[in-house]
Amino acid sequence: MADALLEPLFGASAMQAIFSARGRLQGMLDFESALARVQARLGLVPAAAAECIAACCRAERFDLEALGRDALPAGNTAIPMVRHLTRIVGGQDAAAAAHVHFGATSQDAMDTGLVLQVRAALDWMESQLERLADAAAELAGRHRETVVPGRTWLQHAMPIPFGLKAAGWLDALGRHRARLDEMRPRALALQFGGAAGTLASLHPHGLAVAAGLAAELGLALPAVPWHTHRDRIAELGATLALLVGTLGKIARDVSLLMQSEVGEAAEPSAPGRGGSSSMPQKRNPVSCAVVLGAAVRAPGLAATLLSAMVQEHERGLGGWHAEWPVLPELFDLAAGALEHTHGIVAGLEVDAARMRANLDATQGQLFAEAVKIALAPHLGAPQAHALVEQACRTATAGRRHLRDVLGADAQVRGILPGAALERLFDPARALGAGAELIDAALAAHRRRR
Amino acid sequence: MADALLEPLFGASAMQAIFSARGRLQGMLDFESALARVQARLGLVPAAAAECIAACCRAERFDLEALGRDALPAGNTAIPMVRHLTRIVGGQDAAAAAHVHFGATSQDAMDTGLVLQVRAALDWMESQLERLADAAAELAGRHRETVVPGRTWLQHAMPIPFGLKAAGWLDALGRHRARLDEMRPRALALQFGGAAGTLASLHPHGLAVAAGLAAELGLALPAVPWHTHRDRIAELGATLALLVGTLGKIARDVSLLMQSEVGEAAEPSAPGRGGSSSMPQKRNPVSCAVVLGAAVRAPGLAATLLSAMVQEHERGLGGWHAEWPVLPELFDLAAGALEHTHGIVAGLEVDAARMRANLDATQGQLFAEAVKIALAPHLGAPQAHALVEQACRTATAGRRHLRDVLGADAQVRGILPGAALERLFDPARALGAGAELIDAALAAHRRRR
Amino acid sequence: MADALLEPLFGASAMQAIFSARGRLQGMLDFESALARVQARLGLVPAAAAECIAACCRAERFDLEALGRDALPAGNTAIPMVRHLTRIVGGQDAAAAAHVHFGATSQDAMDTGLVLQVRAALDWMESQLERLADAAAELAGRHRETVVPGRTWLQHAMPIPFGLKAAGWLDALGRHRARLDEMRPRALALQFGGAAGTLASLHPHGLAVAAGLAAELGLALPAVPWHTHRDRIAELGATLALLVGTLGKIARDVSLLMQSEVGEAAEPSAPGRGGSSSMPQKRNPVSCAVVLGAAVRAPGLAATLLSAMVQEHERGLGGWHAEWPVLPELFDLAAGALEHTHGIVAGLEVDAARMRANLDATQGQLFAEAVKIALAPHLGAPQAHALVEQACRTATAGRRHLRDVLGADAQVRGILPGAALERLFDPARALGAGAELIDAALAAHRRRR
Amino acid sequence: MADALLEPLFGASAMQAIFSARGRLQGMLDFESALARVQARLGLVPAAAAECIAACCRAERFDLEALGRDALPAGNTAIPMVRHLTRIVGGQDAAAAAHVHFGATSQDAMDTGLVLQVRAALDWMESQLERLADAAAELAGRHRETVVPGRTWLQHAMPIPFGLKAAGWLDALGRHRARLDEMRPRALALQFGGAAGTLASLHPHGLAVAAGLAAELGLALPAVPWHTHRDRIAELGATLALLVGTLGKIARDVSLLMQSEVGEAAEPSAPGRGGSSSMPQKRNPVSCAVVLGAAVRAPGLAATLLSAMVQEHERGLGGWHAEWPVLPELFDLAAGALEHTHGIVAGLEVDAARMRANLDATQGQLFAEAVKIALAPHLGAPQAHALVEQACRTATAGRRHLRDVLGADAQVRGILPGAALERLFDPARALGAGAELIDAALAAHRRRR
Repeated sequence: MADALLEPLFGASAMQAIFSARGRLQGMLDFESALARVQARLGLVPAAAAECIAACCRAERFDLEALGRDALPAGNTAIPMVRHLTRIVGGQDAAAAAHVHFGATSQDAMDTGLVLQVRAALDWMESQLERLADAAAELAGRHRETVVPGRTWLQHAMPIPFGLKAAGWLDALGRHRARLDEMRPRALALQFGGAAGTLASLHPHGLAVAAGLAAELGLALPAVPWHTHRDRIAELGATLALLVGTLGKIARDVSLLMQSEVGEAAEPSAPGRGGSSSMPQKRNPVSCAVVLGAAVRAPGLAATLLSAMVQEHERGLGGWHAEWPVLPELFDLAAGALEHTHGIVAGLEVDAARMRANLDATQGQLFAEAVKIALAPHLGAPQAHALVEQACRTATAGRRHLRDVLGADAQVRGILPGAALERLFDPARALGAGAELIDAALAAHRRRR
Repeated sequence: MADALLEPLFGASAMQAIFSARGRLQGMLDFESALARVQARLGLVPAAAAECIAACCRAERFDLEALGRDALPAGNTAIPMVRHLTRIVGGQDAAAAAHVHFGATSQDAMDTGLVLQVRAALDWMESQLERLADAAAELAGRHRETVVPGRTWLQHAMPIPFGLKAAGWLDALGRHRARLDEMRPRALALQFGGAAGTLASLHPHGLAVAAGLAAELGLALPAVPWHTHRDRIAELGATLALLVGTLGKIARDVSLLMQSEVGEAAEPSAPGRGGSSSMPQKRNPVSCAVVLGAAVRAPGLAATLLSAMVQEHERGLGGWHAEWPVLPELFDLAAGALEHTHGIVAGLEVDAARMRANLDATQGQLFAEAVKIALAPHLGAPQAHALVEQACRTATAGRRHLRDVLGADAQVRGILPGAALERLFDPARALGAGAELIDAALAAHRRRR
Repeated sequence: MADALLEPLFGASAMQAIFSARGRLQGMLDFESALARVQARLGLVPAAAAECIAACCRAERFDLEALGRDALPAGNTAIPMVRHLTRIVGGQDAAAAAHVHFGATSQDAMDTGLVLQVRAALDWMESQLERLADAAAELAGRHRETVVPGRTWLQHAMPIPFGLKAAGWLDALGRHRARLDEMRPRALALQFGGAAGTLASLHPHGLAVAAGLAAELGLALPAVPWHTHRDRIAELGATLALLVGTLGKIARDVSLLMQSEVGEAAEPSAPGRGGSSSMPQKRNPVSCAVVLGAAVRAPGLAATLLSAMVQEHERGLGGWHAEWPVLPELFDLAAGALEHTHGIVAGLEVDAARMRANLDATQGQLFAEAVKIALAPHLGAPQAHALVEQACRTATAGRRHLRDVLGADAQVRGILPGAALERLFDPARALGAGAELIDAALAAHRRRR
Repeated sequence: MADALLEPLFGASAMQAIFSARGRLQGMLDFESALARVQARLGLVPAAAAECIAACCRAERFDLEALGRDALPAGNTAIPMVRHLTRIVGGQDAAAAAHVHFGATSQDAMDTGLVLQVRAALDWMESQLERLADAAAELAGRHRETVVPGRTWLQHAMPIPFGLKAAGWLDALGRHRARLDEMRPRALALQFGGAAGTLASLHPHGLAVAAGLAAELGLALPAVPWHTHRDRIAELGATLALLVGTLGKIARDVSLLMQSEVGEAAEPSAPGRGGSSSMPQKRNPVSCAVVLGAAVRAPGLAATLLSAMVQEHERGLGGWHAEWPVLPELFDLAAGALEHTHGIVAGLEVDAARMRANLDATQGQLFAEAVKIALAPHLGAPQAHALVEQACRTATAGRRHLRDVLGADAQVRGILPGAALERLFDPARALGAGAELIDAALAAHRRRR
């Protein structure tokens, strides 16, 4: 439902232009125009009629509100489109009107029109996704050695390079790009079958018209019409929702890092951004909120498209209808989330000093596993685990540094004297293969470019 | 997302007016206006300032597009509303501007404003629901004795009165009315807590202002603010989706009855309704399609509101944001489905002759259980079941009437001679307690009125 | 699907007992037993036969695996149950076998059996919910004056009493109890209609048997059978999912409070609880994870039950089948989440000193609104907001206390000299109506007991 | 949740074996075994210890119930697995116990174990999917010229070859096979990162161990660990749900064709299959019900996995947990639906005579578009449409054949004299490109084999 207060916040203007009522209409008109031209080329329609039809297929010549009103009794948007187009064409060339929509059914125009909108939307999504991946790559490379507490179950675990977080985001984004690539030929397919999918009214020219249309519109030519096989549509929804899931994960990470008590990274700030109507000190993670909101919404919309797949015989009753508003909604929220995430990642304010301070705040507990590993060959793994576990409890209870507690243990001192123990608490030595893993993600990113 | 081509078909104009951007803004302004008036009454704000504020709280004085643009950096719709309102008030009375939104937080205005929209929406829904129940009751009463094949697993089962179908719809609608009644006091609750829910900036007048606001707006006064306890919102969603589920069941029934091969009932027809862009003979169940489409969409939207419940501390990050577009969407599609279902039920064209012809078409198989019951005391139930099952197979294979097959069986003839067998195949005698059940549903409906 | 590794962690053993295969079978057998007894009372079945049937209706006499195998071709669980029961009864009293399941249809036994399971499950849920509410009330009362940073958008907002968090949980739990109460009469309704809902095979005794059955089983007697009106079932799902949403909110709060950098509250610890297979220092919020996991799963299951409502004619094809595993799953995960949440809330370890330390860590920024409110009458609200906003930025940039930055401003000093400014930074004075709101929630809780 | 009554009906025994508790355990043990062997090969672990560990990694040596009990406090299934394995290994070779699970974290074992289960499950799914596609191809080829009414909006539209329905199913199944192929390398990836994803405890051997593990297990080696990037898991869910959507479409088609009033096709029958507990004549579409039920359930489960993607930092809290029971559930129901659909398609009983009779039943209205197309060049398209539309109404109202009504119209007779009109009502001539489209789908199928 239209809401001028919310659309700028949640969506993307590019998507709102593509999936507007006008965009929907123009998609159908592009189908009708191509149909007439192809039929003219095949000698099925007079060239002059086709030219006239093509010239009339411009959305700005139509009254959208009147079309909307007429869609109510018709039950779809193509019937009034055909009627209005016929009238417009007839006003110009009475003979041409007879050739409008020749041999096609409503769903041919609606689905192919939608596919044309989808192509524009996917082009935009892919370029934005590449831009986001670049920003994540830049961030990962920049923080190859910035130490931050790794956190599991929302608890300090071990130190990691901050760039590894961004490398994880980058790696996931790469898989989304692959999915979009693989999906394209399935998603961008012509729909053309006529009333019941047999191209009967064009017989014996149906297949030639279909092939011509696919070529004309630059779409894949499917083996058979797919009027009630909606996996192509539902796959679009699932693929977008998968992407939004990753964006939500990024926003969750950043919003947690931005907490007052953590303060390790923050959305970029700007005057007037993230304030409060009551509290002057606030700097709210506005973009994270939008992206997390999208991640709450996308699964339900993707599920709707999956539910809608169970369509009847040669034309769906309800399932098809459910798709009409839902797919555009999903594109818009995915695109909005993508723009916001790009803003977050490209402008992320990183506070390496705070990361280091947070590391220190848990007084060495992040290094407990390192000590355990060092003790294990001497004590046995379970015994080493138990010894360090107990030392952690002692340290927590007494608010002491874990190194000091362990250093006071004669058995530990025997195995790890002085500097050996000290070395285990050096964050820079604790990052394992972190930097190499970042490099691997960056290399994979470069290969995809 | 706005789409002028789809909104008339899928939604209800009443809902689109209530939940428009303007409606959203006016809801917040009604909150601000009431807040100022109540604070004036308590001596917290000068009476003149409150009057000025109240006078400025009219949505038509605001630029919706500018508000939408400003919501983007702000992350919500209340911050720009407060800023624009302050400017408008200040233009009229500079001193009054200081008292705008006093002691409130953005979410107070947004949630209370939403609750006011919801109240208008529920009022409309309830009156429409009553109208639909009346139509179902009328239909049930009218067809108390019209015989139709009862169908289980989409197969002929036993004859039932057609009115029993409508009585089932009616009975379910009654439960939905009860749910809406029970939910109202939970849903229609004031939100007022200030920045973190303690009413701190109004201390020690916070509770008095809250009580005054609830009274002024006619809303329930909750024990504590519910900023991050969203069960009230998610319950609205679930309750609407439950209703849509029942509407979908009705539409499924009617669309199946309307199949070319069944033809027992049909949506009302009208010139230009349910046609096809290609096939002149078509009379498509347009309203059923819309209602079934709504039934595909509602569960995902309700699930979204349930998912959004997991909100953080004193203000949700993402979960709250997900609610903003979703609840209005759900109201709109439920309302659209309700209007279409009323059209279907109130105008249903019933073909009793066709029902009778369809009964006859399965040549007595609908009466198999009646014969089994009659034979069971003599043969034992499993034996009777097996005998009739075999007779049904024989009848189907030979395209014979079940009565004839059974009549040719000496054992059956011994138990059910001539007329006794014949009587078991009389549809009018086969309706069991059908009429009394219809009466019970009608009586319950009258009690609810 | 069965998984002995996961069930103890995610579910509740009480629920797993109620909704086991044996529980499902016993529910159906309780229906069959009551049916025979009621029919005997009405003289429709010999008393001895009814006694024999009732005596055989004990799940332990059945081979569950054989029933499962037979359910595959039958398509439901009642057909093999009736067949096996008939055989068992026949083995004892050949004549009695003829009276098994007399006049009933599979769905009568399955639905009524399910309703009996649901009653046991709701009883358990309600008692657990009361126990949880008591624990939340105790926590709220205990921390009526414990100061903690209120957090909005995951940022420090204003101080609040910690008990107000628990009061918010408590208040929401109260609404869930009300919902369960209101739902009970709708959920706990007899299903009894025979093959197509007309009670035809019992005519003219059908209504008397139905009334007798409802009385015998202590269930509500519906006006008409509800075989394909599944709002009762879907409402159960929605109501459980609503509850799980609130539990998820509690777990989200606790898991955030338990972060290494926050440390204000923690799940109770125990030896062997929340450890790690690698890191000895870990104390993971295990129960929070389970509850949050449940909150991720419940919306999809509730949506499934809503989607399943669109059922055909007199018996659903697919929609009905979808309910069978889903409703028990939802009960089990809701019950598991309820038990875990009780463990969290009843045993919550609260660290008031850490709360106070965290308050201090943002160096007075939590009091920014209080200063703004104090300055507003002198400067005008927007000017006050801007002044304090700028002071916050200065304080953050210079890592200074907000009080010191403001105290250095001559304009501020003029309005709020020395102690007046100091007083605004006193947490105990900043709690507004927090304590009274807690009291209101506790009073409402006592009224519900 | 386990339910021996439902599992045979809804699931597939192959899947239940793969995803049993034992299967889950064995997956983790296969990881531990490979880890030890690879580490021995790299000289990190004594060869004898690795041999001992590998020998102990057999699920039958473990007590599943004890593991389940221990998973409750641990919060995952790997911690008790490691503890029990260590004990078992230690019982055999005390020194070897120290090398169990060396350098790995719980999630490494759990995720990699899951991936191994998934590989077995995908292998099975793909072979079944191929078998189903073969059956659909056979059906499509067999009914290349069998005429059936094409139906749109559940109304007769135009005649189509029955094989075109099956060709549509086949074509969609081909896309699902492509999706599974494309997904495999993403889904079948090693998980190995240690406590926080840096392989720190194995440093500097971490990457070598990872590469060795991937080779040993035959899995893809990811650039970085994917502990909290769950798109691989959620994509599995979405891809399975897409497949189930297509299966649901097939089941919807068959169940509609099998209605008493249509009777054009039926699930294969067998003694004891699809009966009723009350009605002897019933032959219920049991498999359709199961498949349609799966199509109701799959979207919610797929949405759950999408919702679960928003995971925290280096280890998810709740989101990860939600996946554990949900992905196996989805595999099981998809596999069950696949088996049932194969049964339906491979054994479909087709009644070509009934198809022809149903065609005739609407007295020529299926040919309305053909007449319109023939008249359009002479009358103009809108006029031709209107003329035929009116003739259809006249025919319906008078229960006359459309050909007779049109033949009585002088204008029509002028354009389409006698045989010309007659020819338009010949079903065999009305199939357009139907046969060629079937051939195209079959050719594409052969290319995929």
